[in-house]
Amino acid sequence: MNELEAVERIRSLAAGAHGKGVKLGIGDDCAIYQSPGAREDLLLTTDMVIEDIHFRATTHPPDAVGWRAAARALSDIAAMGGAPRFVLVSLALAGWTDRRWLDKFYGGLLRLVRRSGAVLAGGDLGHAGCVYCDMVAGGVVPHGTALRRDGARAGDSIWVSGELGGSALGFETGHGAAWRRHLYPEPRLELGRYLRTRLKATAAMDLSDGISIDLHRLAKASGLKARLDRPLPVARGATLDHALNGGEDYELLFTLPPGVEPPARSKGLPLTRVGTMEKGKAGVVEFFGRPLAPGGYDHLRHTKA
Amino acid sequence: MNELEAVERIRSLAAGAHGKGVKLGIGDDCAIYQSPGAREDLLLTTDMVIEDIHFRATTHPPDAVGWRAAARALSDIAAMGGAPRFVLVSLALAGWTDRRWLDKFYGGLLRLVRRSGAVLAGGDLGHAGCVYCDMVAGGVVPHGTALRRDGARAGDSIWVSGELGGSALGFETGHGAAWRRHLYPEPRLELGRYLRTRLKATAAMDLSDGISIDLHRLAKASGLKARLDRPLPVARGATLDHALNGGEDYELLFTLPPGVEPPARSKGLPLTRVGTMEKGKAGVVEFFGRPLAPGGYDHLRHTKA
Repeated sequence: MNELEAVERIRSLAAGAHGKGVKLGIGDDCAIYQSPGAREDLLLTTDMVIEDIHFRATTHPPDAVGWRAAARALSDIAAMGGAPRFVLVSLALAGWTDRRWLDKFYGGLLRLVRRSGAVLAGGDLGHAGCVYCDMVAGGVVPHGTALRRDGARAGDSIWVSGELGGSALGFETGHGAAWRRHLYPEPRLELGRYLRTRLKATAAMDLSDGISIDLHRLAKASGLKARLDRPLPVARGATLDHALNGGEDYELLFTLPPGVEPPARSKGLPLTRVGTMEKGKAGVVEFFGRPLAPGGYDHLRHTKA
Repeated sequence: MNELEAVERIRSLAAGAHGKGVKLGIGDDCAIYQSPGAREDLLLTTDMVIEDIHFRATTHPPDAVGWRAAARALSDIAAMGGAPRFVLVSLALAGWTDRRWLDKFYGGLLRLVRRSGAVLAGGDLGHAGCVYCDMVAGGVVPHGTALRRDGARAGDSIWVSGELGGSALGFETGHGAAWRRHLYPEPRLELGRYLRTRLKATAAMDLSDGISIDLHRLAKASGLKARLDRPLPVARGATLDHALNGGEDYELLFTLPPGVEPPARSKGLPLTRVGTMEKGKAGVVEFFGRPLAPGGYDHLRHTKA
């Protein structure tokens, strides 16, 4: 069972129950909850950061580990066009982590959380064999306006922000601009809100695992096929494999109705058209005429599940 | 730095920021968020469950691991008098976990979540060297009515539900009623709502780490001293140490105004008066005339933090 199958399995186990106020459950960047009488929907997401999977104790400064943990979760809020409100942080320390590491970790995390307009409102603390962090983020959109994965329509154009593959390249090489890009990714919060309010994007999600698997997810949720037939904006020095299957770029992937043409840049961030949504087998991604397998990082490849 | 000090450290790092809608931050069982216009407050809590800390792969059935993960988080909702609405589950599988384990884990988790009126609305999936689970729970109370740790007043009586020490005994012995108690704890959701709506409890929290440390936390938050001068309801076979310092009983600890006398049992669950809140050094707990150190489980004792 790979990760996609495991998520489907869990979704089927959880199916059939309807939760009061839960407007959207498993299968998008965030769950959506609406309090009775509220004018806003609450977006909720959780993301894990695990030692030796997402970072290495020997190479990643603690401040960057905290920053990246926050960025992962805030990027999900960005993908739905939300404004962050709070985070909760569950952190298991390891035998090797000391007080300085703890301070720097929260320092990096809080720097990004505060800049995004949110606060650290709670969490849990513990210890384990290696460092494990689960970051919960909550954000808001006006009721019923969240950008989702399932809204793309046939004929919509497919776009990505920024450049792809830089984070994967940085993780491999450990130096230069790509390494800094890997250590301190920027959740595209402003762009997400612009997509929601001005461009009226039909669907959006963040690129956390690689466009080959993430676009597969968006296409599947929308019941469409995705055709990639224009050059990807590959980061300088990165390979096509980095760009297609490398994770943690935290750029936004989105679809726009025919005729909607965004500016080439939004506040300095390039926006690049990479393809078109089409009728066809749900979830299929075609790359210059050939089927593209959902690559990217399979989080379950080392388990027996 | 022990766990109490680390939480204070994190709280001081996070201080000074005020989050829109965040009514209560670090330091209680749940954070409280109110959406603009909402009639209800949303309670949010996260709790980790870690292999070889909270359970053992060799002795704990996967269904109980899932149940206990849900119980930990739902118990925090119970402590504030809330009604559960949703959970999000972050789960890192280990090399040894297989599909059957995954199914049984979510089976046990969903059994309790559904019974509590909530749904599984999302989460994250990954792998690590051992199993980690972070459980997020969301629940609701009418605006401004959540039971908190900081509301106790001098002269209030101190009470606990059920019996103490059973879970710690069960974890040690691995058989009998105490073992079943350890594997399948019951979050006291109905009691929590009864405390909030009928008994008008002044403060409440759940007993997750042991009454010696948990009552210290409640007394400190309320700026008072706590005097324990009546026999604790010790579970059959458990020692006084199990009852004072053993964690994971998930009973409720609460304070009532002078003159309020609850029934001896609430829906079959014994309620026992164990002491009185007094003016004095905030956080001091006295046990039959002697100071009681905050014992219980220190989650950071194996780290350098």
